[in-house]
Amino acid sequence: MAAEAASALGLSVAVLSERPDDAACAVAAEVLLGSPLVEADLRALAARADVITFDHEQVDLRILRTLVADGVVIRPGLETLEMATDKAHMRSMLVAAGIPVPPHLVLDAGPAGDVPPSPGEIEGFAATHGWPLVLKTSRGGYDGKGVWIANDMAEVTSVLAPLVGRVLVEEMVPFQAELAVMVARRPSGETVTWPATETAQVDGVCREVLVPGRLPSAVVDAARALGQAVAEIAGAVGVLAVELFWSGGDLMVNEIAARPHNSGHWTIEGAVTSQFENHLRAVLDLPLGSPAPQHAQVASVNIFGGGAGEDPLALLPGGLALEGAHVHLYGKAARPGRKLGHVTVCGDDAEEVRERAWAAAVALGTPRPQVLLSPSGHAS
Amino acid sequence: MAAEAASALGLSVAVLSERPDDAACAVAAEVLLGSPLVEADLRALAARADVITFDHEQVDLRILRTLVADGVVIRPGLETLEMATDKAHMRSMLVAAGIPVPPHLVLDAGPAGDVPPSPGEIEGFAATHGWPLVLKTSRGGYDGKGVWIANDMAEVTSVLAPLVGRVLVEEMVPFQAELAVMVARRPSGETVTWPATETAQVDGVCREVLVPGRLPSAVVDAARALGQAVAEIAGAVGVLAVELFWSGGDLMVNEIAARPHNSGHWTIEGAVTSQFENHLRAVLDLPLGSPAPQHAQVASVNIFGGGAGEDPLALLPGGLALEGAHVHLYGKAARPGRKLGHVTVCGDDAEEVRERAWAAAVALGTPRPQVLLSPSGHAS
Repeated sequence: MAAEAASALGLSVAVLSERPDDAACAVAAEVLLGSPLVEADLRALAARADVITFDHEQVDLRILRTLVADGVVIRPGLETLEMATDKAHMRSMLVAAGIPVPPHLVLDAGPAGDVPPSPGEIEGFAATHGWPLVLKTSRGGYDGKGVWIANDMAEVTSVLAPLVGRVLVEEMVPFQAELAVMVARRPSGETVTWPATETAQVDGVCREVLVPGRLPSAVVDAARALGQAVAEIAGAVGVLAVELFWSGGDLMVNEIAARPHNSGHWTIEGAVTSQFENHLRAVLDLPLGSPAPQHAQVASVNIFGGGAGEDPLALLPGGLALEGAHVHLYGKAARPGRKLGHVTVCGDDAEEVRERAWAAAVALGTPRPQVLLSPSGHAS
Repeated sequence: MAAEAASALGLSVAVLSERPDDAACAVAAEVLLGSPLVEADLRALAARADVITFDHEQVDLRILRTLVADGVVIRPGLETLEMATDKAHMRSMLVAAGIPVPPHLVLDAGPAGDVPPSPGEIEGFAATHGWPLVLKTSRGGYDGKGVWIANDMAEVTSVLAPLVGRVLVEEMVPFQAELAVMVARRPSGETVTWPATETAQVDGVCREVLVPGRLPSAVVDAARALGQAVAEIAGAVGVLAVELFWSGGDLMVNEIAARPHNSGHWTIEGAVTSQFENHLRAVLDLPLGSPAPQHAQVASVNIFGGGAGEDPLALLPGGLALEGAHVHLYGKAARPGRKLGHVTVCGDDAEEVRERAWAAAVALGTPRPQVLLSPSGHAS
């Protein structure tokens, strides 16, 4: 999607990809086969580009530091990437800046065979915050991977046993809603922030995004301000996604991602400027476009492979038959449960646009979970 | 732009291009080097594609007929392509169907050295319709090429002397406005029609498009209905552009193009579904998307290379600084007078969005012609 936005602006994108059938390869002007974790491959990319940016978290900061020392321009910068790829570091940066985050401990799981972290410390935390606890590896997790729920000390021990490196142990926050805020920031600090969205995850995977959905406007506005503050703290350049919990009337920052994010796909049709275009503008230090929404309500629903191997490409006639359904397919082979695309619908009524987006996603083969967001909305 | 729309839908585009640096090559999934006028090249493309379509008029109908006979799916169909690539044929089809067109004669210039068409016939036409006359080759003209204005019989003779094939001699219609209508039509006949636009040409080249601009709504609606009727007559599949004159209170059809068209670039941001997406949907026989406009007023201004060789890519900071300026650059090398892109602005006030779009185009190096559309609008 970033390459589509680049094409519109007449910008030339070279993609470093491990596989020639990666969706980005089809639309990028140039493809280099290789790994973002191999220095020689990154240097080959650097030789072809004015700026290197990322659409994932597979970065080796040690290699990137070497490249930056040699004058390669990498945006976002290493401090931001370190924060976005290390949850323990991110949490400590946010806590130091006074940003509310979920109550948590950071443990050092150490290499396998080492003494595990003190059970007493974890039990003390659970006594205060209650079971179950959430365990997350500090690095490498995404889409629910690297995250576990432990109901007692035996499960904690079992989760920790094979892990290496830092692990966050945190309260399972009883949130009323999950929100996300997308921020775009230039090297100069110029920042634009899209309206906060309500998101729904199943097993840690985003299923739908409503803008602004049924959230009280005070919550949406406070989330947006928090997102902007986090982008400042992170020194972000490019797009930063900030994921939040709304719990007991309070907002707390759960995760960040230093790239265009699933929570911001709605901006392609729903905002004056998309997250992808503004990410490109920001990393190229060009003036940012307006983040203003263009509709009262926008719903974006992810398309997943159905259990019977349904291919949404073959089901396009059904998906496109829904009025105003903006279908995006990512060019991936259909497999049950694999995220294959998304569909966005814009309109006036939150529930109506949401149902229309779901109808299109279901027509494209997506299984619909029983209950996601509460149809009755939220009390303020 | 069609390849960008294809990428969003997860469709794979193979482009047949004569030059590897053609803008479409950078964004298409697959590139075949070759000519649309060479049968072997078209067959190579057909072997890679379910459907062949065109973004230009460089077609050899004889070759295409051979391919269709062998089962290759070409959309639009040959009847539509014949109408769109042969102005004399187009005019006679429209006249037969009762569609108003500019008063004209069709002459057969014949191969060089043949007896020229009768001067008496042309003088008689000029006596009725007045000098100057417009002369157009029936085939091969675009963007003002293949079109001449003749002020007297000596100039007519001079224009005709080197020409081969049929030539239209027509009244220089004293129009109040030029309009364009984009229609998308499926093989089944299902049709959607975008609102008519006001366009301004300089030397036959489109400079700006306003939707709906300052035209009386009755004119806009009548133009839209005419456009839809022409698409039926042409048996169009895909997008058809219909260009009209509004003259003395009457509308007449001047030109048609059987492809996405400059007059429809505004649909990318200005309508629910763009002309490019609906062209793809139509030629693939998928349900068409809504052509509804998303804003009260949309202005789209073409970006041309400035006299000093200004490259709009280098001027992006200035162009993108204009609020809400959607900049599209086509990846072409900048040359004075070459069409290099366009910029679209959406809003509420016709004059305001137009000025903002022009400000962005000028910031991107486009020379602004002294007077284009009348700022005071048109009387109904």
